[in-house]
Amino acid sequence: MNVVVVGAGRIGRLHAEHLTFRVPGTRLVGIADVNRDAAQSLADRLGVARVSTDYRDLVTAPDVDAVIICSATDTHTEVILESARAGKHIFCEKPIDLDLGRIDSALYAVADAGVLLQIGFNRRFDANFARVRRGIAANEIGTPHLLHIMSRDPAPPPISYVRVSGGIFVDMMIHDFDMARFLVGSEIQSVFATAGVFIDPAIGDAGDVDTAVVVLTFENGVIGTIDNSRQAVYGYDQRVEVFGSGGSITALNEYPNQVQVSTAQTVYRDLPLHFFLERYAESYVAEMLAFVDAVRTGSPVPVTGHDGKQALLAGLAAGQSLKQGRPVALSEIEHEAED
Amino acid sequence: MNVVVVGAGRIGRLHAEHLTFRVPGTRLVGIADVNRDAAQSLADRLGVARVSTDYRDLVTAPDVDAVIICSATDTHTEVILESARAGKHIFCEKPIDLDLGRIDSALYAVADAGVLLQIGFNRRFDANFARVRRGIAANEIGTPHLLHIMSRDPAPPPISYVRVSGGIFVDMMIHDFDMARFLVGSEIQSVFATAGVFIDPAIGDAGDVDTAVVVLTFENGVIGTIDNSRQAVYGYDQRVEVFGSGGSITALNEYPNQVQVSTAQTVYRDLPLHFFLERYAESYVAEMLAFVDAVRTGSPVPVTGHDGKQALLAGLAAGQSLKQGRPVALSEIEHEAED
Amino acid sequence: MNVVVVGAGRIGRLHAEHLTFRVPGTRLVGIADVNRDAAQSLADRLGVARVSTDYRDLVTAPDVDAVIICSATDTHTEVILESARAGKHIFCEKPIDLDLGRIDSALYAVADAGVLLQIGFNRRFDANFARVRRGIAANEIGTPHLLHIMSRDPAPPPISYVRVSGGIFVDMMIHDFDMARFLVGSEIQSVFATAGVFIDPAIGDAGDVDTAVVVLTFENGVIGTIDNSRQAVYGYDQRVEVFGSGGSITALNEYPNQVQVSTAQTVYRDLPLHFFLERYAESYVAEMLAFVDAVRTGSPVPVTGHDGKQALLAGLAAGQSLKQGRPVALSEIEHEAED
Amino acid sequence: MNVVVVGAGRIGRLHAEHLTFRVPGTRLVGIADVNRDAAQSLADRLGVARVSTDYRDLVTAPDVDAVIICSATDTHTEVILESARAGKHIFCEKPIDLDLGRIDSALYAVADAGVLLQIGFNRRFDANFARVRRGIAANEIGTPHLLHIMSRDPAPPPISYVRVSGGIFVDMMIHDFDMARFLVGSEIQSVFATAGVFIDPAIGDAGDVDTAVVVLTFENGVIGTIDNSRQAVYGYDQRVEVFGSGGSITALNEYPNQVQVSTAQTVYRDLPLHFFLERYAESYVAEMLAFVDAVRTGSPVPVTGHDGKQALLAGLAAGQSLKQGRPVALSEIEHEAED
Repeated sequence: MNVVVVGAGRIGRLHAEHLTFRVPGTRLVGIADVNRDAAQSLADRLGVARVSTDYRDLVTAPDVDAVIICSATDTHTEVILESARAGKHIFCEKPIDLDLGRIDSALYAVADAGVLLQIGFNRRFDANFARVRRGIAANEIGTPHLLHIMSRDPAPPPISYVRVSGGIFVDMMIHDFDMARFLVGSEIQSVFATAGVFIDPAIGDAGDVDTAVVVLTFENGVIGTIDNSRQAVYGYDQRVEVFGSGGSITALNEYPNQVQVSTAQTVYRDLPLHFFLERYAESYVAEMLAFVDAVRTGSPVPVTGHDGKQALLAGLAAGQSLKQGRPVALSEIEHEAED
Repeated sequence: MNVVVVGAGRIGRLHAEHLTFRVPGTRLVGIADVNRDAAQSLADRLGVARVSTDYRDLVTAPDVDAVIICSATDTHTEVILESARAGKHIFCEKPIDLDLGRIDSALYAVADAGVLLQIGFNRRFDANFARVRRGIAANEIGTPHLLHIMSRDPAPPPISYVRVSGGIFVDMMIHDFDMARFLVGSEIQSVFATAGVFIDPAIGDAGDVDTAVVVLTFENGVIGTIDNSRQAVYGYDQRVEVFGSGGSITALNEYPNQVQVSTAQTVYRDLPLHFFLERYAESYVAEMLAFVDAVRTGSPVPVTGHDGKQALLAGLAAGQSLKQGRPVALSEIEHEAED
Repeated sequence: MNVVVVGAGRIGRLHAEHLTFRVPGTRLVGIADVNRDAAQSLADRLGVARVSTDYRDLVTAPDVDAVIICSATDTHTEVILESARAGKHIFCEKPIDLDLGRIDSALYAVADAGVLLQIGFNRRFDANFARVRRGIAANEIGTPHLLHIMSRDPAPPPISYVRVSGGIFVDMMIHDFDMARFLVGSEIQSVFATAGVFIDPAIGDAGDVDTAVVVLTFENGVIGTIDNSRQAVYGYDQRVEVFGSGGSITALNEYPNQVQVSTAQTVYRDLPLHFFLERYAESYVAEMLAFVDAVRTGSPVPVTGHDGKQALLAGLAAGQSLKQGRPVALSEIEHEAED
Repeated sequence: MNVVVVGAGRIGRLHAEHLTFRVPGTRLVGIADVNRDAAQSLADRLGVARVSTDYRDLVTAPDVDAVIICSATDTHTEVILESARAGKHIFCEKPIDLDLGRIDSALYAVADAGVLLQIGFNRRFDANFARVRRGIAANEIGTPHLLHIMSRDPAPPPISYVRVSGGIFVDMMIHDFDMARFLVGSEIQSVFATAGVFIDPAIGDAGDVDTAVVVLTFENGVIGTIDNSRQAVYGYDQRVEVFGSGGSITALNEYPNQVQVSTAQTVYRDLPLHFFLERYAESYVAEMLAFVDAVRTGSPVPVTGHDGKQALLAGLAAGQSLKQGRPVALSEIEHEAED
């Protein structure tokens, strides 16, 4: 199975390394990036022959089976369209796009071409959240009633990123909306958002908030909350709890070690794993293994284009809820987009 | 310092025992209950001389310094009025009353008489929540941004109680509204409530919900959530988390022991302390010690009539929010009551 | 059931308070102490009528049912003998005596008189260790193979105490020898002791050690270790682990709260409960309730004179092992004493 | 830097994979194994050109810089001698040899040739134990007084292995002796061993024990204990605790996730990581990175031949202590070997 990577930034390099060293049975045959140096140096390091500044050169090559899209968000749709047309299977980083119409066109092209499309919601493959999902599916806690997601970054992104990212609900909480759907196993019906600028006024000046709480109602009745903060000084805080008729299941943070020190002052341990590259290292490998397995066996991908779209819908609804100070149904956003 | 207890039900018996055995420097001199047998048997057991079916006999006695009100909620206001008129200091179980106008009249009478009034929000005296509050006050986590309260009972109350209690927001979440104000150190500005009937349809038939999530916004900007469930099958679940600019502080559940068993199947421990009598045992003693200390030294009580009123306001606002599907400001409820 | 307390020191006052306030169905009718002021002030505080500097006045009184011996160790045997002769049931603080011959005479007198004798190994009644014992008895971990006891005080006792206490194996580790027998449910066969003076040279000058590790072999084959330190700067450290064919059961420390703080530096909690009065508060009540129950129902006491003797035997054997640098069988010590 | 691997068994395959995929700057150029198929299939999988059934073919090749010895223990010394003679740096799995005289000859040859020799005590590179060591070195707990190591396998090895391994003290506890020296930072002076056959009588029939406790005294005064069991039914149990004048530092087990489930029966989590391949996965990579770094920079290796010899000495002394029922000094064993 021959794959090409489009986009040689941080996440593209990560996937390229995994495909080279940790995903058996695949061959990374090409790397595309608008920055030739970035593509070339990655290719050199991993012994990859083909390099291009135009992704089309690679995704249309007859010997290529799959395309890993890690380029800028605003290029995702066109790379999906080209890849689908060329009959290639597609792994695309989240979000698919910030525009619902373009997402629909991408999903249509994928369905039309009969290729597979997997979205990069890697957290589903984290050992912790996967265990929570298995627990719910195996009825360890009965019927779910309540969901809580605590999701906080160690430090805010650059203001330049905040200005173009689409805002906290779309660039950050989108992961949590997907996690919420994944864990609860039902669609989000409506959201109510509250938020503030507590960390850096420049984030507010850029039109965004840095701290947010969203209440979710699901079609199966479950009530959930998500909190996001752009800055947890103690590091990456990624926890979930699902409470049900038969009990409760909780995933706590991962730490670099299980060492505890007792002194005359306190009992302490080291801080949690610092950020997503540490915390979710294995989940990136696992999602790629799952994609390769789906392509090889022709079985459905574990994270679909529909999943990508629904998470964005929730993010857009949350943005609107915050603006209007009222709960917003996802169907409102979808209908607006259709009009 | 001579005290009398009005109401010899479960909580009245608890306070009477503490006053006898664990609160030095006080003498329990009388017990009133409309049920003479209840009052008499408690008095016999604790060696208390005076017993009456009419609380007035006791609260007007010249040698009585303080009145502990543990009777039915709908009698609180009149006992407060009588006690204040008689110049006695007052400890009153929560809620003060379900009617805001009557609460105001009670608070006015107390102020007018210049007596002390402490409300029985005992959870403030729990070692865990008191430690969280101290941590916030001592700046251990910087400026608070977010608050989460998880508060779940082991089993629903009888339906007969649900019918007259005023509903989950007033009979159960009122404790959490007070905890929220206590921890954050600011007034609740508005609430948004979501809820469902997941545990027992009879609760829905009685006009109440059994599971609820409320989002709070505080005057200082903090955003909070409270979840309530009438039934956590693993026992009493009472946790809080406050997240701030300098870190996060969390109070987990209390367990009957610190024993862990590792077997071929799982690693397990016993369930948390089952319900409030186990979990909050020491907090009831501590609140009474604080009341006695305030009376003795003339210093302010740690939980005021204002605290009692604000928690009820939040509960009423949550009820209205649920009905109307929108966030409701506490000031709306207060103004309605004034009209 | 009328009881008298002999010895109004710290532990005597504790038992006297519990008998007054927390052990229903008993009446504390007398307090003896060679220091009249100590006895009198305690009696005044608790409303006890009889006070004496001569314990005989109290233990021979016809209306007294039981004697609680909390006087100095070197008086235990004679108070036991007098009490047994007078037909009174006896609760005696540990150790019974430091001399095996005197212990035997005390146990003989008790058996001869047909009275009950319970020894104050209160830790058996701690919720944690009791849970471990129940787990083993209920086969939660199969057949025990290994035992570890970690037992460390927050600070050394005064040197004056060290000089007369009989040494660390007898004044401190004796509790752990009893715990070992209690948990394993078998007799200690031999001990091997290693030790050092790490904390205060003055302890070494007084002829004792301040840090010790003992390996135990039990008649049923179990191998155990006990460590003792006179000074754990983080507070009282009292943990056990029993490992068996079906798993492992561990009792960790008790903390004043379940609060955890995450900051930019570490994740920390408060120190464990500081010392035995905090950690074992409830166990003192529980052992007295058990004694009173045994007296009332005529059922066997949960901690017998034999238990008291065996723990001392292990302590003496450990002392000899340390001196001689070899494992010492408890039977050696017992036979020496008989010669 | 070109390396060859001698021995294509489980651990040889592990190191070969790490050298190929996870240790930058090295090239695996040859694999030797007496079983040609084993060597060939590993070489094919990893794209390695040279294969031989005679390790001499590879370790004498002029382009080879280092030799990774993963063959059977009784071949270690001769491969070390050949490699040293050929001027190659050496990484050797533990134990170096079971014969002290042969160890000395190997260490002499290494010193004489001026090559580096690193022993495969991989646990020193585990994130937990490395953190404990750093904590001690950084004075987080003051001067060490006590050490405890709990080290238990999930299941016993085959009886065929038990018969030739040299016994539990040499094949299993040798890791813990090294860990003890590593953590305490001082040499073991003497050991006292107690043991039993609790798990499988066949192990006793083979002349070994399956459960053992050893007390260690160190030259700097520290007292330690190690327990070993061949079978912890809940999985790999690998914990340490070091207690000192300024506190205590503890490394607990690693689990596959941080998920906790509360049900109506218990609060539970999944079992610890099952065995060394899971628990110590990263430590094998880390030790090889350290070896490669030492070779490249000419700096000392972190685990020396002396370390390998001292751990074996402790194992042999423990075996003798068990036989003779007395503490045995390591110097006794060393002197016997010299005679």
